[in-house]
Amino acid sequence: MNDELLKIGQNAKAAAYKLNLLDTVTKNQVLNDFAEALIKNTDQILAENQKDIANATDMPAKFTDRLKLTGQRISDMATGLKQVAALPDPIGNIDKGWQNDAGLNIEKKRVPLGVIAMIFEARPNVTVDASALTFKSGNAVILRGGKEALHSNLALAQVLRDVLKQHDLDENSIQILHDTSHETANELMHLNKYVDVLIPRGGAGLINAVIKNATVPVIETGAGNCHIYVDKDAELQMAIDIIVNAKVQRPSVCNAAEKVLIHQDVAEKMLPSIAKALFDHGVELRGDAASQRIVSSIKPATEEDWSTEYNDLIMAIKVVDDEQQAIDHINHYSTGHSEVIISDNYQSGQDFLNKIDSACVYVNASTRFTDGFEFGFGAEIGISTQKLHARGPMGLNELTTTKYVIRGDGQVRQ
Amino acid sequence: MNDELLKIGQNAKAAAYKLNLLDTVTKNQVLNDFAEALIKNTDQILAENQKDIANATDMPAKFTDRLKLTGQRISDMATGLKQVAALPDPIGNIDKGWQNDAGLNIEKKRVPLGVIAMIFEARPNVTVDASALTFKSGNAVILRGGKEALHSNLALAQVLRDVLKQHDLDENSIQILHDTSHETANELMHLNKYVDVLIPRGGAGLINAVIKNATVPVIETGAGNCHIYVDKDAELQMAIDIIVNAKVQRPSVCNAAEKVLIHQDVAEKMLPSIAKALFDHGVELRGDAASQRIVSSIKPATEEDWSTEYNDLIMAIKVVDDEQQAIDHINHYSTGHSEVIISDNYQSGQDFLNKIDSACVYVNASTRFTDGFEFGFGAEIGISTQKLHARGPMGLNELTTTKYVIRGDGQVRQ
Repeated sequence: MNDELLKIGQNAKAAAYKLNLLDTVTKNQVLNDFAEALIKNTDQILAENQKDIANATDMPAKFTDRLKLTGQRISDMATGLKQVAALPDPIGNIDKGWQNDAGLNIEKKRVPLGVIAMIFEARPNVTVDASALTFKSGNAVILRGGKEALHSNLALAQVLRDVLKQHDLDENSIQILHDTSHETANELMHLNKYVDVLIPRGGAGLINAVIKNATVPVIETGAGNCHIYVDKDAELQMAIDIIVNAKVQRPSVCNAAEKVLIHQDVAEKMLPSIAKALFDHGVELRGDAASQRIVSSIKPATEEDWSTEYNDLIMAIKVVDDEQQAIDHINHYSTGHSEVIISDNYQSGQDFLNKIDSACVYVNASTRFTDGFEFGFGAEIGISTQKLHARGPMGLNELTTTKYVIRGDGQVRQ
Repeated sequence: MNDELLKIGQNAKAAAYKLNLLDTVTKNQVLNDFAEALIKNTDQILAENQKDIANATDMPAKFTDRLKLTGQRISDMATGLKQVAALPDPIGNIDKGWQNDAGLNIEKKRVPLGVIAMIFEARPNVTVDASALTFKSGNAVILRGGKEALHSNLALAQVLRDVLKQHDLDENSIQILHDTSHETANELMHLNKYVDVLIPRGGAGLINAVIKNATVPVIETGAGNCHIYVDKDAELQMAIDIIVNAKVQRPSVCNAAEKVLIHQDVAEKMLPSIAKALFDHGVELRGDAASQRIVSSIKPATEEDWSTEYNDLIMAIKVVDDEQQAIDHINHYSTGHSEVIISDNYQSGQDFLNKIDSACVYVNASTRFTDGFEFGFGAEIGISTQKLHARGPMGLNELTTTKYVIRGDGQVRQ
């Protein structure tokens, strides 16, 4: 085991012990001070970010766009921090409480998870977002960002750590891994003694590497092969509006729709208008033979298309015999993120809601609503596509666990 | 991938799809029929169990005692099945529901996890317990029991599967792995496409092997290095009663206490009486130098003792400077199961409850209460010592997940 990492794990554990006992007033004051410190240190942060940008000249524009910080982006981070300060603190909530047969008073109480590790790609804003949410929920965080963003991440974290120091709090509540090698990331995935949960944020490659390698508990996030099923009783204009919104409004994110399934009874009538609306927005369409017969400019889809998350202006279309075939297709190919039925038929809607095995299942709305802010959580650490612990958008509450607090007066078991 | 296992995975997934849609009345009727069928087939089950017993002549008495079935034990299993039938069904409960800013109606609904795999040792009763709880909570189960119990497990499962068939339900709701090799168990730990969660039940060796190897999500259960801290303000008789109960009532289980920490101010006064009470119950005591100075018949404890779960009539004792030292010792050496403070001091109790990082933290009661039945859950699938998903005793609710069910009328994201 790498000595730096071991030390970081020990430091995080020690910091978590103290964070667990920190009151909400102090936490909120610190978060507001984080915000002010970021603004105050804008020039220095931008200078460090400039080093990362200068090293990334070979990278695609999309990559450097995510990497680049500006005065506006730092100001947005500061606003985000103040929003987190204003959210209710989940720690200390009693989920339920009762008296058992022996007269013990049992409370199920919300407590921090402890030490949260995050592995993410070259997006410096994650450093600030993740620090804010883990701090507010009383957790210590170990951040391992993409190596291309290291200067930016260190600069941002240093600003936050200085604020912690000013408050006489443990700087190691927020730690950045300086060593961005794959070997060290891999060791982080095996730091069971110190890491309570690891949350990977990034593309499918990163997520799968973590699932395959980690022995620490993992929350899987962000894979979104989302489907929209246009039922025989769909309203055409609603179908067009929802499909266009779900595909086009922000194609790069996990809650964008990737597939349209359409009932054979309405395919002839509706598919041309749906395809036209998507073409008008520059979307490339790929489809099965039946959809290509109806709209000849649809390109052929391969088997691989059905399980692909494009994150781009590409969509695949399939004509289905009936709703059950749509449900079976979705349960087979989906990543379990978000699926939609467009229908005015009550029973079709109920069947879809009951039979689809995904985190979020909709009748007549866009997949783009699967989001912590849209759900009203006021924050989001990611969208869980697994079934354990948290499923769907994760806010502050999902960064906590519970413990049973039990008060007796001498009870022994009979 | 082993063909038998792949087939079992596919069968389980197909069965889970149907179980998810099954109503509570039918599930309860099936559970009651399970109970009657076990009684009716007692002779045949005992005959199969006899084969396992005959093969286990080289095993220790403790092992064959767990393996052996009797008419009474089968009758107890049947009673357990009827109790599960009588429990409330968690499936379909709405944990919360609200309308978001866009007018979407969002419900967080309890649904089955899907396919639950269990790896357990040679205890045939787990086959019936686990089948009952997973079936009631709408999950398909894949059971991989110890090879020494294979005849018994297959006989029990066949009785249950016949009942499913009589009800025109999918037999593959309950499947036993015939192949009990380590290789196949290892492949089960990697069956991510079909297994939603794996719950190992058994000793530390089994649990650690699963954590180290599994890529499917795991719920860690059952490791209990439980502590009792006797504070300076403890009442002596209460301390004796609780310590004796927690150690002696059933020493082989995970919620039995393994360690006593005692405040130096009361060690001279209390330790002799506590030690005498334990010696009177045949408990071997091991301790640090300070405790040995007070009670000379305490044997020396090694560093290894502090992290050992004895599951036997052995207990280790340490004299601590103060409560903080006790808390630090527990947070360092505990498996995070159950810890107790004995104290009449309000602030000492509060500090202990707040600072100890374990699933169950008690003031003035025995660790033996950490149990699904004692908590009033009416059932128990295990005691989780991890922080994700479930922590502490797990009942039916912990065998479920949630999905967001969202009803709109055409909303798109702005």
